[in-house]
Amino acid sequence: MKASIHETAIIAASAIIGENVEIGPFTIVGENVTIGTNTRIEAHCEIGVTGGTISDGALEIGSNCLIRSGTILYKGSKFGDGLHTGHKVTVREAVTAGDGLQLGTLCDIQGFCEFGDYVKLHSNVFISQSSILGSFIWIFPHVVLTDDPHPPSEVRLGCRLSDYCAIASHSTLLPGVHIGEGALVGAMSLVRDDVPENGICVGVPGKNIGTTENIKFKETGLQVYPWRRHFHRGYPDTVVKKWIAEFKNS
Amino acid sequence: MKASIHETAIIAASAIIGENVEIGPFTIVGENVTIGTNTRIEAHCEIGVTGGTISDGALEIGSNCLIRSGTILYKGSKFGDGLHTGHKVTVREAVTAGDGLQLGTLCDIQGFCEFGDYVKLHSNVFISQSSILGSFIWIFPHVVLTDDPHPPSEVRLGCRLSDYCAIASHSTLLPGVHIGEGALVGAMSLVRDDVPENGICVGVPGKNIGTTENIKFKETGLQVYPWRRHFHRGYPDTVVKKWIAEFKNS
Amino acid sequence: MKASIHETAIIAASAIIGENVEIGPFTIVGENVTIGTNTRIEAHCEIGVTGGTISDGALEIGSNCLIRSGTILYKGSKFGDGLHTGHKVTVREAVTAGDGLQLGTLCDIQGFCEFGDYVKLHSNVFISQSSILGSFIWIFPHVVLTDDPHPPSEVRLGCRLSDYCAIASHSTLLPGVHIGEGALVGAMSLVRDDVPENGICVGVPGKNIGTTENIKFKETGLQVYPWRRHFHRGYPDTVVKKWIAEFKNS
Repeated sequence: MKASIHETAIIAASAIIGENVEIGPFTIVGENVTIGTNTRIEAHCEIGVTGGTISDGALEIGSNCLIRSGTILYKGSKFGDGLHTGHKVTVREAVTAGDGLQLGTLCDIQGFCEFGDYVKLHSNVFISQSSILGSFIWIFPHVVLTDDPHPPSEVRLGCRLSDYCAIASHSTLLPGVHIGEGALVGAMSLVRDDVPENGICVGVPGKNIGTTENIKFKETGLQVYPWRRHFHRGYPDTVVKKWIAEFKNS
Repeated sequence: MKASIHETAIIAASAIIGENVEIGPFTIVGENVTIGTNTRIEAHCEIGVTGGTISDGALEIGSNCLIRSGTILYKGSKFGDGLHTGHKVTVREAVTAGDGLQLGTLCDIQGFCEFGDYVKLHSNVFISQSSILGSFIWIFPHVVLTDDPHPPSEVRLGCRLSDYCAIASHSTLLPGVHIGEGALVGAMSLVRDDVPENGICVGVPGKNIGTTENIKFKETGLQVYPWRRHFHRGYPDTVVKKWIAEFKNS
Repeated sequence: MKASIHETAIIAASAIIGENVEIGPFTIVGENVTIGTNTRIEAHCEIGVTGGTISDGALEIGSNCLIRSGTILYKGSKFGDGLHTGHKVTVREAVTAGDGLQLGTLCDIQGFCEFGDYVKLHSNVFISQSSILGSFIWIFPHVVLTDDPHPPSEVRLGCRLSDYCAIASHSTLLPGVHIGEGALVGAMSLVRDDVPENGICVGVPGKNIGTTENIKFKETGLQVYPWRRHFHRGYPDTVVKKWIAEFKNS
């Protein structure tokens, strides 16, 4: 099946557009952009923006992606399959992402950062340059990751987030902090120090106050974390099967 | 007077557009959308977006509305008369709103929530699913309402805000909290517990520190709250008359 | 060299467009707009929006500006040379700005405020009405400047920021505070009181905890502030030469 491109969309001659791709009204696709099969790009997007510091690079977008309207993706980045964006997302240059990246409405990814697989950002998350995120991470609305320890300076100390960690709404991570695997940052916390594996950090300034294993669901008394014990929506079957097996005896 | 639709706008055949409606350039109006008389929709909007979980629903927009440019409204929602949006607002599906809703620039309403009459949100407010807001409420810039007590989980505990309450800038409401009628949440507070009627909550974590009746204007010594004592701009005459009568002997 | 205007852009007859200006696809330029030479306006912008309270005013944009896509500038404002905006910026009416203003992606400037020269706002900064900012100021992501001491009321108490101050990410400034020259506000602080010249304010609520002269770079032991000692990127040569001379003996 051929691509379905709205007549008002502006598509550069060199763009490589896979089978069954849809491109909406008033969307612009620039030079050196590759879009995988079955990907849908909605209205008012700009895909393959030049003007970043490595603006001559290519932009690669995988298959089965959903790019919601108003989204801007710079050149020089590479996204795996199943990228889902909300509306009005901006991703600057030199971003590499695995499969299943979700970027909520208004997310602002500053470029030069890395995402593993199935990282999910809710609305309006700000990711500074040099951030390195593992896989299966959750970041909730209005979280800010910073990278400059002495603003303004030329020092860049990106944050590092390990697999399965979750950062609750409205928190700020100071430059260079490491959030350990499975750790939880409470809402509206200011994280100044590293958070250990399965640790909990809350407050302004943030304090490490224990481990996630003590958090139970009120109704059932079951252990909440690691969240992959119970939260499976939106992940591939192969992944979910592994998670179920991991916890079947606990 | 007939509707005035810009030649670049894309209007679905089934859209029902009232008299004297204006629709700006590069705006898209989808199927099953009803727009009331005298409503103005500016440029670069998308009205009646599909893709939500109940995307086959209709979208109803009342009369005398002003939808500023870049605004996105999903199908499956219903807005009363006098809706005013700022720029680049996003409202997902299954939202019901009374008359006079104001949504500031960049507001992000996640769907499945309820607004009474004359609710006013300033810029960049995030309203999570399942939130229930009464009437005559104010929410100031960058406030976040959350709904998941154990992120990420399938539990949804929307916040509930009663009439006349005011939430100051940059605050976060934790899942399921109730803000009482006429209560005030100070700037940059983290609200964990219910705030009683006419109560004041401030701090991180938020503490209930008294009642609003003690707050006076510096210059005049007059009581500030309930704010309807003195703040009448933008409300209908019938409402303002009632408010004036309510406080004429105090 | 003549202006290069995309065929889909909509340009009002009375707009005065300088030499070598570029205007991108789906961008709208209204009446009474003046755009200086060598300025580039990207796609999906609205330049010269009416509907503000002084919507009949003109809009003046200087030379050598870069207005990134999705940006909205109201009428009634005046920007000097070298304005750079990120994406999806909104600037309401009655703003005056000197040269070299930078407004990051998603910034929301509410109108009726003043910027000196070379003020740099990172992403998603909210500037309320009546704010007055000096020159060479830095504001980092998700900072909120407020102006209403008793929300909602008719009182407007804008914040005042002096030259060379820096406000770190996710902070809130309460109405009417003055940030002294060269002062530093730490990340996620709630500033309630004035911050003295070269002072440091941190915390919720914010406390003045000393002066910036004690902050040193870890690696070199050199003094970090005033930041113009070491941070020169993006400023004109004439300015940088003065800064170098100022600190050459210290």
